[in-house]
Amino acid sequence: MDLASFITSVLTSFVIFVVLVLLFTWLSRRPGNAMVYYPSLLLRGLDPWEGRRRGSRSPVGWISDAISASETDVVAAGGVDAAVYLVFLSSGTPISDEHSTIISIDLLPFAVAVLSILVYSGIILLPVLLPVAGTDNALEGAAGFSPIEKLALGNVQKKSARLWAFLLSVYWVSFVTYFVLWKSYKHVSNLRATARSTPEIKPEEFAVLVRDLPRPSPDETIKDSVDSYFRALHPNTFYRSVVVTDHTKADKIYQEIEGHKQKIARAEVVYANSKTESNPEGIKPTHRTGLLGLIGKKVDTIEYCSEQIKELLPKLEAEQKTTLREKQQRAAIVIFNSRSAAASASQTLHAQVFDKWTVMEAPEPRQIIWPNLPRKIYERQIRQAVVYTIVFLIVCFYIIPITAISAVTTLENLREKLPFLKVVVDQKEIKTVLEAYLPQLALILFLAFLPALLMFLSKAEGIPSQSHLVRAASGKYFYFIVFNVFIGYTLGATLFKSLTTVINHPTGIVNMLAKSLPGSATFFLTFVALKFFVGYGLELSRLVPLIIFHLKRKYLCKTEDEVKAAWAPGDLRYNTRVPNDMLIATVVLCYSVIAPLIIPFGVAYFALGWLVAKNQVLRVYVPSYESNGRMWPHMHTRIIAALLLYQTTMLGVIGLKVFLYAPILVPLIPMSFIFAHVTHMRFYPAFDKTPLEVAQHELKEAPNMDAIYTAYIPQCLKPDKLEDLDVFEDAQSHTTSRAPSI
Amino acid sequence: MDLASFITSVLTSFVIFVVLVLLFTWLSRRPGNAMVYYPSLLLRGLDPWEGRRRGSRSPVGWISDAISASETDVVAAGGVDAAVYLVFLSSGTPISDEHSTIISIDLLPFAVAVLSILVYSGIILLPVLLPVAGTDNALEGAAGFSPIEKLALGNVQKKSARLWAFLLSVYWVSFVTYFVLWKSYKHVSNLRATARSTPEIKPEEFAVLVRDLPRPSPDETIKDSVDSYFRALHPNTFYRSVVVTDHTKADKIYQEIEGHKQKIARAEVVYANSKTESNPEGIKPTHRTGLLGLIGKKVDTIEYCSEQIKELLPKLEAEQKTTLREKQQRAAIVIFNSRSAAASASQTLHAQVFDKWTVMEAPEPRQIIWPNLPRKIYERQIRQAVVYTIVFLIVCFYIIPITAISAVTTLENLREKLPFLKVVVDQKEIKTVLEAYLPQLALILFLAFLPALLMFLSKAEGIPSQSHLVRAASGKYFYFIVFNVFIGYTLGATLFKSLTTVINHPTGIVNMLAKSLPGSATFFLTFVALKFFVGYGLELSRLVPLIIFHLKRKYLCKTEDEVKAAWAPGDLRYNTRVPNDMLIATVVLCYSVIAPLIIPFGVAYFALGWLVAKNQVLRVYVPSYESNGRMWPHMHTRIIAALLLYQTTMLGVIGLKVFLYAPILVPLIPMSFIFAHVTHMRFYPAFDKTPLEVAQHELKEAPNMDAIYTAYIPQCLKPDKLEDLDVFEDAQSHTTSRAPSI
Repeated sequence: MDLASFITSVLTSFVIFVVLVLLFTWLSRRPGNAMVYYPSLLLRGLDPWEGRRRGSRSPVGWISDAISASETDVVAAGGVDAAVYLVFLSSGTPISDEHSTIISIDLLPFAVAVLSILVYSGIILLPVLLPVAGTDNALEGAAGFSPIEKLALGNVQKKSARLWAFLLSVYWVSFVTYFVLWKSYKHVSNLRATARSTPEIKPEEFAVLVRDLPRPSPDETIKDSVDSYFRALHPNTFYRSVVVTDHTKADKIYQEIEGHKQKIARAEVVYANSKTESNPEGIKPTHRTGLLGLIGKKVDTIEYCSEQIKELLPKLEAEQKTTLREKQQRAAIVIFNSRSAAASASQTLHAQVFDKWTVMEAPEPRQIIWPNLPRKIYERQIRQAVVYTIVFLIVCFYIIPITAISAVTTLENLREKLPFLKVVVDQKEIKTVLEAYLPQLALILFLAFLPALLMFLSKAEGIPSQSHLVRAASGKYFYFIVFNVFIGYTLGATLFKSLTTVINHPTGIVNMLAKSLPGSATFFLTFVALKFFVGYGLELSRLVPLIIFHLKRKYLCKTEDEVKAAWAPGDLRYNTRVPNDMLIATVVLCYSVIAPLIIPFGVAYFALGWLVAKNQVLRVYVPSYESNGRMWPHMHTRIIAALLLYQTTMLGVIGLKVFLYAPILVPLIPMSFIFAHVTHMRFYPAFDKTPLEVAQHELKEAPNMDAIYTAYIPQCLKPDKLEDLDVFEDAQSHTTSRAPSI
Repeated sequence: MDLASFITSVLTSFVIFVVLVLLFTWLSRRPGNAMVYYPSLLLRGLDPWEGRRRGSRSPVGWISDAISASETDVVAAGGVDAAVYLVFLSSGTPISDEHSTIISIDLLPFAVAVLSILVYSGIILLPVLLPVAGTDNALEGAAGFSPIEKLALGNVQKKSARLWAFLLSVYWVSFVTYFVLWKSYKHVSNLRATARSTPEIKPEEFAVLVRDLPRPSPDETIKDSVDSYFRALHPNTFYRSVVVTDHTKADKIYQEIEGHKQKIARAEVVYANSKTESNPEGIKPTHRTGLLGLIGKKVDTIEYCSEQIKELLPKLEAEQKTTLREKQQRAAIVIFNSRSAAASASQTLHAQVFDKWTVMEAPEPRQIIWPNLPRKIYERQIRQAVVYTIVFLIVCFYIIPITAISAVTTLENLREKLPFLKVVVDQKEIKTVLEAYLPQLALILFLAFLPALLMFLSKAEGIPSQSHLVRAASGKYFYFIVFNVFIGYTLGATLFKSLTTVINHPTGIVNMLAKSLPGSATFFLTFVALKFFVGYGLELSRLVPLIIFHLKRKYLCKTEDEVKAAWAPGDLRYNTRVPNDMLIATVVLCYSVIAPLIIPFGVAYFALGWLVAKNQVLRVYVPSYESNGRMWPHMHTRIIAALLLYQTTMLGVIGLKVFLYAPILVPLIPMSFIFAHVTHMRFYPAFDKTPLEVAQHELKEAPNMDAIYTAYIPQCLKPDKLEDLDVFEDAQSHTTSRAPSI
């Protein structure tokens, strides 16, 4: 790629970005769009305009708002997970400690994690490496090299002493990464400890998830056996247990009732609206009972649905009873009457045999994946092994079926197989467009559905909570994109052609990467620029949600609830967001020494990303769960993985320059492993388990144990009144073994 | 080796064995030797002859006694560790369940672990493989092969369909091993659970070892900070803590006093004996105060020692106070008032940061290695890494310095360097003998000191308890002997010559092993026979301890205590015993299919070993610690390691016969890994931690907490009376923060 096309490409991206930001500034100030641009604020009962700071109405107000918001604000709006994500992108310590509202742009250079790594690296690498490379002349005489390439490692002569600068830069970048990661892990660890020791009462801190229950004796239910087992082992601290049930049928009836209720609400609004002056009686809304409301008998909606509800309610009650008594599954949530008792119980081995009574910390009620809880330990192991194999095959060989499908679905084939398409296909313009895009169609569809596919696969592993699921899917997606986009693009077809060579000589892949990397520098420069300008522009302007919301509100929504559902912002979707950022981090890290010019682009990407994400966290997204930053150890490990890839390729790249001292880089690789081991040993246990120190904190008030208990009862089984809890308990056991009231 | 020399060798061994057994039978029936042959019985206050069963006085009485003793008897005599060792050798389930006194030889075939593996394997392999191999003729025409070699795999033609029998035999042996190991692990796991839930009060079940204490604030001692920390986190269950102190100086004074006390006792006996009729006054014993009692002033021993004790006692008291107050170290034993509280606390993460307040189960008081407790977590990690590196170097390259030393210390060199040896060396007979043995001298000395060296290295890792130390040293010794005796002998010099080939092609070593193994079959047959006949003969007859005891009693011992010390039997020394047995198991396993004739020898080795070990456990050895069978997971893992070595070499051996279907063996290798993983997952946690189920058992009586507390106070610091405990407590803290009495 020559300089002109590079500049064109970056400029185009920049123009698109400016247009999108202007659009955002204009659209977000229109009150009618508040639901799209400030849903998080609205849901927390805040007015997006009144009481906001002076900057809010100025075009760049959102920037100063985002920068000045403290970490406490972020935790309040988006939870610890969002705060941890922001630490990952860039910042952390300085701002959180101050709770300041001043515009703290000057604090940014001290910010941590990826942004800090790049900033610290850039401070040294740019002023040192650019002149060192620029004043050499290895490329002189070679045709068609761009000024960008002249400022990179490629321009340095073989065996040149200038390579020392590059070699030491690798050390600098590595040490900066260690330093920043250590500080960040410490910071996140404190963040997590603080969040876990707030005086608020959280049901999950009183509960323990127990799986692999043994088969109970014939004269007792599973509930009975759980109660007696835990009462015996924790006589002073056991409160009650919720046995997991197979409540799909009860849930179906419950949802049906809810559906009818919604229909009635909607019909009443329609009915009220139809009472115009000309027709004061109005028209009673009707619908057909058959398929999709298109066929079948025409009925009065309100009457019909009320009747249906009346019919379904006793059915639900009967089904609830059957579910509670007969559909108990071999897993349970056990609730203790103190947080430290629960923390301690979740970490203690209960049974002599490991595959019985396995305990772990209970997830939040809202993020439990009920069907996965009763899976046996061996089943979980086997499922995990199968899923990992499938993912491995997808990561390495997904291109094969995609290519095969593309080959089969050529235009000619489609024309023959589906003759009715002929009319369309035979038109010349359409044909041209289709011919251009059809080959990629399978690939595009595959990539679009990949995150969902990975979520599905991770769910099949038997993971008990949504946050864990997101972490698992995010890991898989990370490997996919780093392997396919970064390594895949760099090596291109050579990798697959010489696959046998690679298998026989694993070191060969490093050499191949080393040979190919410098050539792709400009491509990745453009790639990063495109990603951040267009990606963040779209993210900030929320054009797609805006259009969908307005369409829905105009043509579909009748009741307030429906409107609310139409602007529901969802959460940050870490499962695709984190791997994509990690890809950029990997790319920038790997090129930081080869072509230091990439660093400013990386800094811009993460600074802008931090700004936009902070804005979105504060104003838009609503977290659907809180895992108190359990994502961090994964981010940490993956940054180290990227660092290792970087160190290995640099060893190859500098080695290819026939530089005698290249082996000086070798110690970096074990050093990274030791760093990973030490940080894991030091910080990870507090992410995996709850330290007693943390669980021992004071509570705001004496916990309402019944409320904690009820939080773990699925919606469709919940008794209407708290007083019914004892009846609910009794329904589950053969003997009336009621828990002693505390 | 031809047949004649093989038979000669085995017969010689057998004759030695018979002589030793006869010696044992004769010697063990002489009352004067009871202390050598029945020390364990004597120490438990049992009479070796009265009340013993009818068989005891018959020559083979010990055999029936050993066979009929139940596992409960074994646990009573030698602890769970000894019982587990017997399970490892051979038996277990059948005998323990019956508590029978009948001679249960017919039960032996059902016995488990190594013996069972070999018996089950032999049942199929011997009748099938011997005829299959014997009737082939690959060796015909080759010169100098023995009938033994004709009955082995070497006699089967290449590509022959007979190889199917050998291939399937590998599967049979593998499955037998899985089956037996699974049953044994289950059995040992129950044994451990039973032992841990006895109603006896054991101090270690109430205690938790806490290491990596943080630096206390300046106005409190370490003891204060431990007490306040644990009282805050376990308000209802914390009892008291014993802070580890650097008590070497106090211990030195204490030992000095004890030494003087012993001297007085001895002098009094000598004095009493000297009062003969001719000299009714007697002679007061005297000694010199200088070096080794050879120089210096001559003093009256009794007077002198009494004075010394009088002088030392106040010194000891002062030193005790200083130690308690000022020499507190950053580790502590924390005692809880219930077993389940201690079990739960030892498994719960206490601090947010992992390298502070790390907890683990407390070892028994008698096996604590005090100086290792205060080592920091990072120090432990680094020490471990260094020790592992040293051991790796010793295992692989110990032969290099040994050879170098041998080369330097030739007779000629010695003669030149140490001229005074000339007189000795120049005599012809001595010269011949020295020339024969001197080269091996360094090797012999090295091998003799190796177990001690490995114990020393393991101790340097920072391991907190004696039993853990023995496990660690045993593992290192296992790798040493398997690598050097088995692989080393088989491959011989070829391995070291072609070391570079091996490093480049790791699969090459398998091929080399496969080529060399069949040739060494006869050597290992002889090796196993020698090992068991001579080894067990010596073990049973206890000739060396017998001679040492009689010499000591005659010339050295004066007081009863000294006699008792002279026959103190020690414990089983698992650190060398288990690896040696494992070596035989590895050898027999690896040859089981190549030369099935080795199986009867292996069966004899383990059956006899089981018999002798059981006899020694019941009558001789006294356990010096009890780890409730924590050795088992290590034995289990190492049997699997041996199995993997076996499967890999068999793949090579059958592959070398150009047998097309050899790859059918490949799935066995992942299968073994999966088996290891599943058993580890299922059984190991109950060995690593105490399950609550087990800790919850009823106690015989309410525990005497003061006695438990005192058990963890080192001998030299122990207050004389239990009432002084509070004073003892106060001596350690700045503030008087006495524990609330329970």
